[in-house]
Amino acid sequence: MGGVAAGMSAASRARRAAATAKITVLERGPVAAYGACGLPLWLGGEVGRLEELLAHPAEFFRDQRKIDVLTGHEALELEPGRHRVRARTPAGERWLHYDRLVLATGATGRWQPPAPPRNLFAANTWEQALGLDAALRSAAEPIESMRRLAVVGAGYIGLEVAQALARRGLEVTLVDAHATPLHGFDDELAAILPPLIEAAGIAYHPGTRVLGLEGPAGGWARALATSAGMIACDAIVNCGGLRPETGLAAAAGVALGGWGGIAVDERQQTNLAGIFAAGDCAETRHLVTGAAVWIPLGTAANKQGRVAGQNAAGGSSGGRPARFPGVLGTLAVPLFGAEWGRTGLTLAQGRAAGFDAAAQEVTAGTRARYMEREKAPATVTVKIVYDRGSGRLLGCHFRGAPGTVTGRLDAAAVALTARLDLEQMESLDFAYAPAMAPLYEPLAIAAHLARRSA
Amino acid sequence: MGGVAAGMSAASRARRAAATAKITVLERGPVAAYGACGLPLWLGGEVGRLEELLAHPAEFFRDQRKIDVLTGHEALELEPGRHRVRARTPAGERWLHYDRLVLATGATGRWQPPAPPRNLFAANTWEQALGLDAALRSAAEPIESMRRLAVVGAGYIGLEVAQALARRGLEVTLVDAHATPLHGFDDELAAILPPLIEAAGIAYHPGTRVLGLEGPAGGWARALATSAGMIACDAIVNCGGLRPETGLAAAAGVALGGWGGIAVDERQQTNLAGIFAAGDCAETRHLVTGAAVWIPLGTAANKQGRVAGQNAAGGSSGGRPARFPGVLGTLAVPLFGAEWGRTGLTLAQGRAAGFDAAAQEVTAGTRARYMEREKAPATVTVKIVYDRGSGRLLGCHFRGAPGTVTGRLDAAAVALTARLDLEQMESLDFAYAPAMAPLYEPLAIAAHLARRSA
Repeated sequence: MGGVAAGMSAASRARRAAATAKITVLERGPVAAYGACGLPLWLGGEVGRLEELLAHPAEFFRDQRKIDVLTGHEALELEPGRHRVRARTPAGERWLHYDRLVLATGATGRWQPPAPPRNLFAANTWEQALGLDAALRSAAEPIESMRRLAVVGAGYIGLEVAQALARRGLEVTLVDAHATPLHGFDDELAAILPPLIEAAGIAYHPGTRVLGLEGPAGGWARALATSAGMIACDAIVNCGGLRPETGLAAAAGVALGGWGGIAVDERQQTNLAGIFAAGDCAETRHLVTGAAVWIPLGTAANKQGRVAGQNAAGGSSGGRPARFPGVLGTLAVPLFGAEWGRTGLTLAQGRAAGFDAAAQEVTAGTRARYMEREKAPATVTVKIVYDRGSGRLLGCHFRGAPGTVTGRLDAAAVALTARLDLEQMESLDFAYAPAMAPLYEPLAIAAHLARRSA
Repeated sequence: MGGVAAGMSAASRARRAAATAKITVLERGPVAAYGACGLPLWLGGEVGRLEELLAHPAEFFRDQRKIDVLTGHEALELEPGRHRVRARTPAGERWLHYDRLVLATGATGRWQPPAPPRNLFAANTWEQALGLDAALRSAAEPIESMRRLAVVGAGYIGLEVAQALARRGLEVTLVDAHATPLHGFDDELAAILPPLIEAAGIAYHPGTRVLGLEGPAGGWARALATSAGMIACDAIVNCGGLRPETGLAAAAGVALGGWGGIAVDERQQTNLAGIFAAGDCAETRHLVTGAAVWIPLGTAANKQGRVAGQNAAGGSSGGRPARFPGVLGTLAVPLFGAEWGRTGLTLAQGRAAGFDAAAQEVTAGTRARYMEREKAPATVTVKIVYDRGSGRLLGCHFRGAPGTVTGRLDAAAVALTARLDLEQMESLDFAYAPAMAPLYEPLAIAAHLARRSA
C-alpha cells in the first residue's frame, strides 16, 4: 500500500515477476505515479503543467500492466494474522485481503500542529502542491490574496520551495532551526548560500525555532511564532524535517529500527513473513558505514520498490531473491544559479561513525585552464572526506557552476560503492579534453592533496 | 629526455622527491611544457594565442623548480654502460652524464614519406602546429596561398584538425583508411559522423589508403595519391596513426614490448637498471585485460611521468616505490556539435581479449522526462560492453549532446577500475534531480537491460 516511487515500482516489478497475480495499489492521494521531486519546479513555473509530472496515467497501469491502482484509498489498519487491510475508500470503509504485502507508506512532516490552520500548506505531495498553488491563485478569505509566505525549513526542499515562491514574486520568509542552510550537506560548502538566498529576495532566519502559530479562532494563522519573535504572514509552507510514516505498520507488529523507520533486510522483508517495505517508510543500510540509516530519497525508493515487488511476487533473478545493497544518500540540487551535491558521509558523520575522518577541499576549473579563460569559467569545489588510517574515501561533496556537479558526483558514488582509497582515486583514468574536462580531475587533485597532507 | 606531459611531470616530481638533485630535461622542440591536446583548438581559433597552451614558461621550471629545461636539445644516442647521452644542441653536439634516466621520447606519425615535401604538415607538436599555421597565413611559393588541404587520418586528432581547418574557411578533404571514422571508438556510435563531417563542408573519403604524394621535383606535392585516385591539394596534414618513438632506446638495449613501445613494470622501470620510461614512448598495462597495451594519451603520460620521476629520484611514498596501475584508454572528444567518449574495451576488443563479450546500447534523456520536454533535450547514447558469463563490465562508450558525456564517462571509468558487474551497476546510488540528472541513469538502464537479455 502506498503509490508513488516505491509503491508503483513494487507493483510494476511484481507484475513482471508474476504474470497472473492480482496486484492492487492503495493510494491515499488522487494520483499514484508522479515525480514528486518536480513539485517545486512546477510551483516556480519551470514546469508548465502539473500533469507533466505524471509518469503514467492510471489507465496505463490498469490496461498495460494489469495493476489495480485504487486512488483515494487510505489504509487504516493492518491485520497480519488475517492477511487483510482495512481501507477508507470513496465508497466507505472495506477490508481487502492479501497474500503478500508491500508497505510503501512514505514519510510525512515532523511538525504537525494539533489543529492545523487552513493557511498551513506543504509541498511534499501532489495534493499538497496543488492545494498551495490553488490558494496562491485565488482570493483567500479572510484576506484578499496571499502575498507574504513563511517557509519553515531550509533543507533542500525548503530552499527549492522558497526559491520557487520568490520566483512567483511573493514575499518569502525562510525560517530554519539550523545555523546553516542545506542541512545534511557539507556545512562549509553551504556557507555561501545565505547571501544568495537574500539576493533572491528571501528574508532568511537561521537558528530560529518555530514555537507555534498565532491567529484568531477560525483556523487562520496570522503569524508564525518563533524563537526570534513573531513573523507576520498570509500563509505558512511546512518544509520542515520528515519522519517515516509507520503508525499503521507499528500498530500491526511490524518492527521499527533505531531511526524510527520500518526495519527490513536486504530483500526488503520486514520481521513479519510476507510483509515487505520500501521507500521513505523504511530504513536501509548505508554503504559506507554498513549501519542502518534512514535517508528518504526517491532514487532509493524506486530501487527498493523493485526489490520488494520482485520478492513479494515470489520471483527470483537467477535463483536468488532480489537484494537491495544500500544507499550513499547521493543527492544533487540546483539552488540560486549554482549546484550542490553530496554522496556518502559528511566530515561530522564520518567522525560520528567512528572513522578517523579528515577532509580535503579543492576548487578548480572543469576544463583546460586556457579554455576556462576563453569561455565563461565553470568552477567546481570538491570536498572529499576520508579515513586517515586506511585512506578510504568516506564521502564527496560538491558545489559548482551549472553542469559541473552531477557527473563527478556519480563518479564519486561509484568510488564509494567500490570502497576506493585515496591512492586509487589519485590514479583513476579520468577523461581529459580541453573543452570538456580538466587535465587533472578535481576529485583526483583532492585525493592527491589529502595523501600529501597525511 | 623529452619534455611535455611525461617528461615535465617526471622532472617536477623528481624535484619534490629529491630536493638537491640536479635535474635536466632535454627537449628537441622549442617549448617543453604545453598542452598538446589544445593545438587543434588553437588552429581552429577556439584558443586565441598559442602561448595560452603553455603550462609554465621555461623560467618557472628554472627558477621555481630548479630544473634545467634544455629546449632545442635532441638526444641522439644513449650509452647505458657509461651513463651518458649524446645530444644535438644549438651549440653543437655534446655528451651529458646521468645517474638516473627517464625516457619520455613520445610518439611520432607512422606515415613518414622518405623525402617529405615542404607542404607536408602535422599538428601533433607545438612546432608542427606553428609551422602549419604560419604556412596557412603566408603566401607560399610556388602557389599564392594554401586553400585546399588534405587531412590524412580520421581518428580523433584528424577529425579535430579537419574541423579546425574547415572552421578557418579552408577546403578540407579527409582521407582515411578505415571504413568508419573515429577509429578506436565504438563503430556504431561513430556511424552518425560521416553526414556531420560532410555538413561541415569537409569532403570525406573513408576506406581510402594513401599511396604516396604526387608533385614535381623541388619538394612541393600537388596531390595525394590514394587507392581512390588522385586528390589535388595545396598542402597535406598528416594526422595518421602514431607509433612509439623508440629508436634511440632500442639501439641502446632497452627492451620493447609486443606493441613496439618500451616495456616497463609498474614502477615505469625498463629492463635496464636506472632507466625509466613514461608517456607515449612506453607500453602500459590495460586495467581490464591486465595485458600490455600501447594507448598514447596525455593523461596517462602525466601520471606515468610522476611515477617515473619519483622512482628515478629514489623517492618513495610510505616506504614503497611509486606505482602506475594502468589505463582504461579513457578519452573524450567534442566533434561537430556532439561529444564522444570511450573507456575500457570496445566489443571487438573484448572478444579479441577472450571475453564472451556482448553489448547493450541505450539512448535516453539526461534530466527528468518533463524537464527534457521543457528545455532543449539533452540526449545521450550509452553502449556498455560486458562479459556474458561473469556479468563484468568491460567498456563504456558514449555519444551525446554537449555536457552529457564526460561525467558519466568518468563514472564508468571508476566502475571499470573497480571491476563492477552489471548487477552492481544497476543498483548504484546515482544522483537524481529533475533539472540536472535523470531518474534512471542511462548507465544503470543499460546494465538493467543487459541483465534482462541474459
